[in-house]
Amino acid sequence: MTIREEMKLVKLASPKLAATAGETRNAALEAVSAALLAHQEEIFAANRADMEQARQDGVPGPILKRLKFDEGKMRDVIAGIRDLVAMQDPLFQTQLKRELDEGLVLEKVTCPIGVIGVIFEARPDALIQISALCIKSGNCVILKGGSEALRTNKKLFEIIYGAVRESGLPEYCMMQLEARSEITELLECHESVDLLIPRGSNAFVQYIMNNTKIPVMGHADGICHIYVDKDADLDRAVPIIFDAKTQYVSACNAVETLLAHRDVAAELMPRLKAALDEKQVEIRGSREIADLIDCAPATEADDASEYLDYILSVKTVSDMQEAIDHINYYGSHHTDCIVTENAAAAEQFMNLVDSAGVYQNCSTRFADGYRYGFGAEVGISTGKIHARGPVGLDGLLSCKYKLYGQGQIVADYASGAKQFHFKDL
Amino acid sequence: MTIREEMKLVKLASPKLAATAGETRNAALEAVSAALLAHQEEIFAANRADMEQARQDGVPGPILKRLKFDEGKMRDVIAGIRDLVAMQDPLFQTQLKRELDEGLVLEKVTCPIGVIGVIFEARPDALIQISALCIKSGNCVILKGGSEALRTNKKLFEIIYGAVRESGLPEYCMMQLEARSEITELLECHESVDLLIPRGSNAFVQYIMNNTKIPVMGHADGICHIYVDKDADLDRAVPIIFDAKTQYVSACNAVETLLAHRDVAAELMPRLKAALDEKQVEIRGSREIADLIDCAPATEADDASEYLDYILSVKTVSDMQEAIDHINYYGSHHTDCIVTENAAAAEQFMNLVDSAGVYQNCSTRFADGYRYGFGAEVGISTGKIHARGPVGLDGLLSCKYKLYGQGQIVADYASGAKQFHFKDL
Repeated sequence: MTIREEMKLVKLASPKLAATAGETRNAALEAVSAALLAHQEEIFAANRADMEQARQDGVPGPILKRLKFDEGKMRDVIAGIRDLVAMQDPLFQTQLKRELDEGLVLEKVTCPIGVIGVIFEARPDALIQISALCIKSGNCVILKGGSEALRTNKKLFEIIYGAVRESGLPEYCMMQLEARSEITELLECHESVDLLIPRGSNAFVQYIMNNTKIPVMGHADGICHIYVDKDADLDRAVPIIFDAKTQYVSACNAVETLLAHRDVAAELMPRLKAALDEKQVEIRGSREIADLIDCAPATEADDASEYLDYILSVKTVSDMQEAIDHINYYGSHHTDCIVTENAAAAEQFMNLVDSAGVYQNCSTRFADGYRYGFGAEVGISTGKIHARGPVGLDGLLSCKYKLYGQGQIVADYASGAKQFHFKDL
Repeated sequence: MTIREEMKLVKLASPKLAATAGETRNAALEAVSAALLAHQEEIFAANRADMEQARQDGVPGPILKRLKFDEGKMRDVIAGIRDLVAMQDPLFQTQLKRELDEGLVLEKVTCPIGVIGVIFEARPDALIQISALCIKSGNCVILKGGSEALRTNKKLFEIIYGAVRESGLPEYCMMQLEARSEITELLECHESVDLLIPRGSNAFVQYIMNNTKIPVMGHADGICHIYVDKDADLDRAVPIIFDAKTQYVSACNAVETLLAHRDVAAELMPRLKAALDEKQVEIRGSREIADLIDCAPATEADDASEYLDYILSVKTVSDMQEAIDHINYYGSHHTDCIVTENAAAAEQFMNLVDSAGVYQNCSTRFADGYRYGFGAEVGISTGKIHARGPVGLDGLLSCKYKLYGQGQIVADYASGAKQFHFKDL
């Protein structure tokens, strides 16, 4: 069977999975937990082999750290599955119930999206989380993990798919791609795949977005800003900027550009520089900033750069509107923050900045499904169609309209013989 | 200024429009109503000129009927605007309010999508309805109407844009394209346009979907089915099929294929044929159907055809699952109906059929925003990402996350010094 033929079978399985009861999907999640624990030694052994290979191939430290799957990570994913089981069934939820006329009742109910393709980095725990979210939400999933985790992923998929099949979920409700070349085939299967969620580098996500007709949810850039207002409390501003820049530099929600109101820049910058110097953060400043502190010169390219590194570009603005305009023009609509004690200014900033996350007086690093209390996330979306921001279970849902009648026909309403009365139930 | 430059200005206007108060947008709608009435003679004159030209160009009758804009249509659109004014502001609605930790409050609030491009048929009332929906939902709109309505649309746009500008909505919150060639430029402006809603023929919508990176909402095909179950009441089945086929044959929600359970086909078909003969409907039947009634032979092409004409393809199925499989494979996921008195069978059909509308015992022609009580619709979506089914105000919304803090940083939560407590407010 070719990859394409198998994807068609996944598509055919999707209405069957969508119709399964919440208890069946929860039982499948419990079975997955049990099977993972029962086979953990095999999983760890496969992961050791992947780690060994990756070390031989000179894979860098941070990637090795994500690749590793040990007892601590197993505990976390098992806890995550338990949280999902405890959550209300997201499917068959009635969002609207309306009597259009006597004996003609409309219901809008939640349903899964269908078949979701997820392309993710070499992190075995991500495979488990994504699978669990898709099982809970009744979505068929096609998984393609980073190649460094090949052996671990193969083992995990075998265990998870086996457990869900034994629990009564339909054949082909999950599928795994192994070779990178299979991504090309996935991108072409718009008749079988309803949504793609690519995770990874900016260039990779851009590539996916430019090479498929399948709707794509996710984000390429993460150029986040902090604007320090003239009414900012600088005792708050400095630690917020320090955290947003240095707590984890390679995250998409780390700050890349600081916009300082001209009235506070002279007091802010020396204090900020002292803090950032601790972590050897390179500041690239506009000419005005260079007059205040010792820093490298910023060019326009810096305004549009996602450094993912210990670098921060800084410029002054003469008012909040200038900051808003800069963010809407150069930003990536991910997460942007205002530091101010002025509630009216904060509200204006938060309404006018066109981003998935708009913050007052806290670190941009909070933009994350776990930190929002969503339990888990499949990714963060900067698009405005469908889910926006961190995407948990909700973002994996669609809806359908059910209309229950007793023989009603449109001709009677078109002729005026009958009238709709629209009564919400 | 080029079209592209103007679209960029529309994009820049979009956060300003998104931040306007509900009262301002309502005042703008009232001003639009008043201006339309004040200038109705000019509008009717422009429309008479369009009608005259269309008649000279040999435009067919049904299109002329839609092109005409007279006092009756004016009354309808004014009533539609009044309904929109009375509706609650869809923006700034809090969908989630959660204290993540003391003094750190997350809110998920509704906001507009941004800039919406709508390409629609030569129907002047559509221009007014679409504009009104976009004003109410805070979306900037780029309008391209059918060329036969050029003069009417130009006049309408001038009046509507003038009225909203005087009411304080931002400059460039609306834009009109006039030449067909400008559609190509619109499709290329993915940095300025957040969503496209094309209305029109299957081929045209397919063309749009295949030639842009902008997300597209809408539908190409409308291949709707009615399945007559073994437990159907045939006294209900016949008028439902008659209405769904003949009440308005060129609508996307008209039925194209009938699937009859083998147990009822012999009784159903002669009665149905007698009814459909009244309207000279051509029946294209499978071999089994041809044994029951006089009909043309159906080929596999008929299974995948949207006739938009007085033609119905009919085949027998041996059970409900065969009907479901047929619909999911050949259908367009628009609206499909089961005729049955068996509630359990209906529920199973409605859960397993993967369509935006799944009906029991009523005509597929009910699939429409007005008939669902949405007040107005911009179109019907068969996609599962974002809005599905008839799209009213709700489908024009996105959301953003606002996070209000008091200096919180992520390092404190990563180190364990602080814990989230997730309390919904």
